Amino acid sequence: MTMQRTPLLIAKLLDRAALMAPDEEIVTLTANGTARQTYAEANRRARQLANALKSAGIASGDRVATLMWNGYRHLEAYHAVPCMGAVLHTLNIRLSPTDLAYIINHAGDRIIIADADILPALEPLAGSITGVEKIIVCTQDPQGGTEQNTSLASALGCEIIDYEAFIAGQPETFDWPDLDENSPLGLCYTSGTTGKPKGVMYTHRSTYLHTMAIAMTDTMNLSATDSLCGIVPMFHAMGWGLPFAALMLGCKQVLPHRFMTAEKLLDLFAAEQVTLSAGVPTIWQGVRAALTAEPKRWNLAHLSRLTCGGSAPPLEMLRWYWDTLGIEMIQGWGMTETNPVATIARRIGKRSQTGLAPDQQFANINKAGLVLPGLEVGIFDEQFNRLPHDGEAVGELLVRGPWICSEYYNDPQPDKFHDGWLITGDVARIDPQQYVIITDRAKDLIKSGGEWISSVDMENHIAALPGVAMAAVVAQPHPKWDERPVAVVVAKDSSASKEAILAHCASAFAKWQIPDDVIFENDIPLTTTGKMDKKRIRAALAEQGYRLPDLR
Amino acid sequence: MTMQRTPLLIAKLLDRAALMAPDEEIVTLTANGTARQTYAEANRRARQLANALKSAGIASGDRVATLMWNGYRHLEAYHAVPCMGAVLHTLNIRLSPTDLAYIINHAGDRIIIADADILPALEPLAGSITGVEKIIVCTQDPQGGTEQNTSLASALGCEIIDYEAFIAGQPETFDWPDLDENSPLGLCYTSGTTGKPKGVMYTHRSTYLHTMAIAMTDTMNLSATDSLCGIVPMFHAMGWGLPFAALMLGCKQVLPHRFMTAEKLLDLFAAEQVTLSAGVPTIWQGVRAALTAEPKRWNLAHLSRLTCGGSAPPLEMLRWYWDTLGIEMIQGWGMTETNPVATIARRIGKRSQTGLAPDQQFANINKAGLVLPGLEVGIFDEQFNRLPHDGEAVGELLVRGPWICSEYYNDPQPDKFHDGWLITGDVARIDPQQYVIITDRAKDLIKSGGEWISSVDMENHIAALPGVAMAAVVAQPHPKWDERPVAVVVAKDSSASKEAILAHCASAFAKWQIPDDVIFENDIPLTTTGKMDKKRIRAALAEQGYRLPDLR
Repeated sequence: MTMQRTPLLIAKLLDRAALMAPDEEIVTLTANGTARQTYAEANRRARQLANALKSAGIASGDRVATLMWNGYRHLEAYHAVPCMGAVLHTLNIRLSPTDLAYIINHAGDRIIIADADILPALEPLAGSITGVEKIIVCTQDPQGGTEQNTSLASALGCEIIDYEAFIAGQPETFDWPDLDENSPLGLCYTSGTTGKPKGVMYTHRSTYLHTMAIAMTDTMNLSATDSLCGIVPMFHAMGWGLPFAALMLGCKQVLPHRFMTAEKLLDLFAAEQVTLSAGVPTIWQGVRAALTAEPKRWNLAHLSRLTCGGSAPPLEMLRWYWDTLGIEMIQGWGMTETNPVATIARRIGKRSQTGLAPDQQFANINKAGLVLPGLEVGIFDEQFNRLPHDGEAVGELLVRGPWICSEYYNDPQPDKFHDGWLITGDVARIDPQQYVIITDRAKDLIKSGGEWISSVDMENHIAALPGVAMAAVVAQPHPKWDERPVAVVVAKDSSASKEAILAHCASAFAKWQIPDDVIFENDIPLTTTGKMDKKRIRAALAEQGYRLPDLR
Repeated sequence: MTMQRTPLLIAKLLDRAALMAPDEEIVTLTANGTARQTYAEANRRARQLANALKSAGIASGDRVATLMWNGYRHLEAYHAVPCMGAVLHTLNIRLSPTDLAYIINHAGDRIIIADADILPALEPLAGSITGVEKIIVCTQDPQGGTEQNTSLASALGCEIIDYEAFIAGQPETFDWPDLDENSPLGLCYTSGTTGKPKGVMYTHRSTYLHTMAIAMTDTMNLSATDSLCGIVPMFHAMGWGLPFAALMLGCKQVLPHRFMTAEKLLDLFAAEQVTLSAGVPTIWQGVRAALTAEPKRWNLAHLSRLTCGGSAPPLEMLRWYWDTLGIEMIQGWGMTETNPVATIARRIGKRSQTGLAPDQQFANINKAGLVLPGLEVGIFDEQFNRLPHDGEAVGELLVRGPWICSEYYNDPQPDKFHDGWLITGDVARIDPQQYVIITDRAKDLIKSGGEWISSVDMENHIAALPGVAMAAVVAQPHPKWDERPVAVVVAKDSSASKEAILAHCASAFAKWQIPDDVIFENDIPLTTTGKMDKKRIRAALAEQGYRLPDLR
């Protein structure tokens, strides 16, 4: 073999920040200020953590879970656990106790590293988790919580140790082992809106390639010169891979911990000269509201890009950030099963768009985007025939490539895969320019009189009304048409009347697509990943005995 | 295995441009204008070429050579040959007949695709190349050269076919085969300043990873929105990987063919709105001279970045491009054995440099740069002990990683490798910021009185004098000091006197480092890759019976 067969191990990328930018900072928000460390310190502490875990018996392939906010100790776990050959299992702190217990047992977690304020989430698990030997607790206030911990330890039947005590005195060097590049690296469970949560086991190879891909100019456009604030939780699909990419590039990292109000985030952006941030649309709606209320309060001169994912942001919001602040919102689409970034839409994503007028530049930005180099996407009918990329045909979106899941961890679920492709569960069109346009989650589509209605298009259209804060469109059973759409709306003010909303819909949709009803609520339930939980909306309507109005 | 094991095959990247940007252009300069094709056409023609090669008996692993300028047909070969599983062997058109024959025979080339104007280079090879079955000739003027070709065919004992006739009527579809990702993809021979030329056989995996790496924001900063003009020949180290990256991203490509005068290049930049170009320092010196002579002639409003490699550009030139035109020169270092890009220096390469004053921003730009993510560099003494990265220690530069050569093709040369590292033959320092600073080629270092003198530093210093066009510093034998430096200078005007040059050297170097002599010549011989050929300079001095002046 004429070229080196160096395995694609994540340690080859993650040690780079401490080498290239030893003095660059990792800043974590605390109750009273910030905790600051350099990459040099972070690298030494990650190695101490690895030595402590090794002393605690953690070997290659063993699962080490985290139940943590975005913070410097979580980042140390991101570095240490995969590099030492163990598996980083990021627990979603918003799961129900039942799901949490299921996931911990299914993964076989031996150690859990938890932020002190989240620790109470483990109390209800007493008696139902059996394999956990140790819980490592991270406190921002080193004096706090000792008594509580003792009672929790005895309830859970495991040892509870303070994080700093756990790593104290451990050697600051650790020779990361040579591994097969297909060794497991990290484990994330999907939020499981149907059935039990399913685990996706990333490998060194898959995460290595994903990390390189998101650092490309045309994807997330990350650079060593950035000050990056990852708001997307590190317990969601590996924080979109940003912690790994930052450790590769050596950019400044700014981590909000549990302090995620719009004001706190904006204070952080201004104080730490954040250049690039990443979060779900609801975060950016909140930040926008704060900026609108106090337009002169924050100096955001350094901020140039916001990456938005998790669900489709309204076009009107993308425009607002660009027109008002000159900030580009980079939209991405992906899922836990895709490591997670699979497509990216930028304001100007191709050379043919560079000469366009401002309005036209936004023609593609609220699409899911163009597939990343190395991946393939396609849309398929129910018999898995490929459908054309003509912007008209609607089919199930399938994706394949070297950072796409091929089976769930210890739960293969072959019906979620087809002939080497992942069946995403999203329904989409692909236009002739190859932009993927997500029409709906397959299970949220509304089938009325044999025709499909996309809830997502309608929701974005309604949410663009100035008086509307949020809108969900769900199917309700209908004796004649099988299903009919109903809009559930959170209003900002009285301008968002039923009549105004329906008239607004009539301006853009066919008559048969317009919702049969508009229901006003004080809020819309969200999933643990921040998306509108339409399953719960439908369940609530059923529980209330909701009936469609008779429009005959 | 929980993640897809999709092999890293170059076809997965190279078909992307035609999908994403079917109407984007590939523009090739011709004697009378430009030849233009779209990525959609290029993709169909690449598949026709693959079918034609298959019909001619080319199978997986067979070598197909090119003897071509940068042009659209060369790009078609870059696409078709590796994707069909054959090996693209790019012949350096500037090699001597002896080396050319050696390389063709050593590689076992079965087919050569050649530009018509370079075809005469094959005439002297009659009788010495035996395995070549067909030569495919590319003419810009379809009528030309037929008679000549007939006599050349009979001399070489092989068939000669016109490129267009070769691919005409072939199907426009070709299902690229599934291959092992470690299959060979391309073959480049080093220019061979010592001994026989040595071949580096790139694999699909190595080139796939290199292609992703150079599209990162912090490396070559390539984007789909670019109009890219690769001046670096596609017969040098795969054109620095730019043809592959462009086919992945779908950016516009502008190819100069054989027309590489500064004026022609500048006309092309202006007419095709080039945003990014890449070439060796001598190209950029020539372009600068043309711009200085006629500052208002060309509109370079679109041009923002010039990638420079092959040898170290003078700092003063980098400054000139930035200060005069706002164009960033991105410097890279690498070699055929590194696929080829290994390090990159940008004007602002780290966040800690963003606040620097203009002068300080250039402190690192004429260093070889920071190692690319995924690779490792180190400096070592003669016993292969690692030396510190303190900016002081000087040692042999070694590099390793997944796109670095591990042995030469059919000629392993184990002394060029050490414990999994490539011994680059360059002597370097690495500073505490991890910038690699090439001191010299190992064989060009000057050893005077037991101390090393770097020829490169001295050359750059002398070349910064306004009256100096080029300067080479070489060792000459000395009875007392073993070796002493001598400067060979091409002067622009009479201000470049011996006294002025030595005084200029005295301002920056220790007395014992200053050249013993300055010799004025009309030109300095270049290697086939455009570097100053110090081996030939030393040989010429020896042949002339040159003696050092007696300075006692």
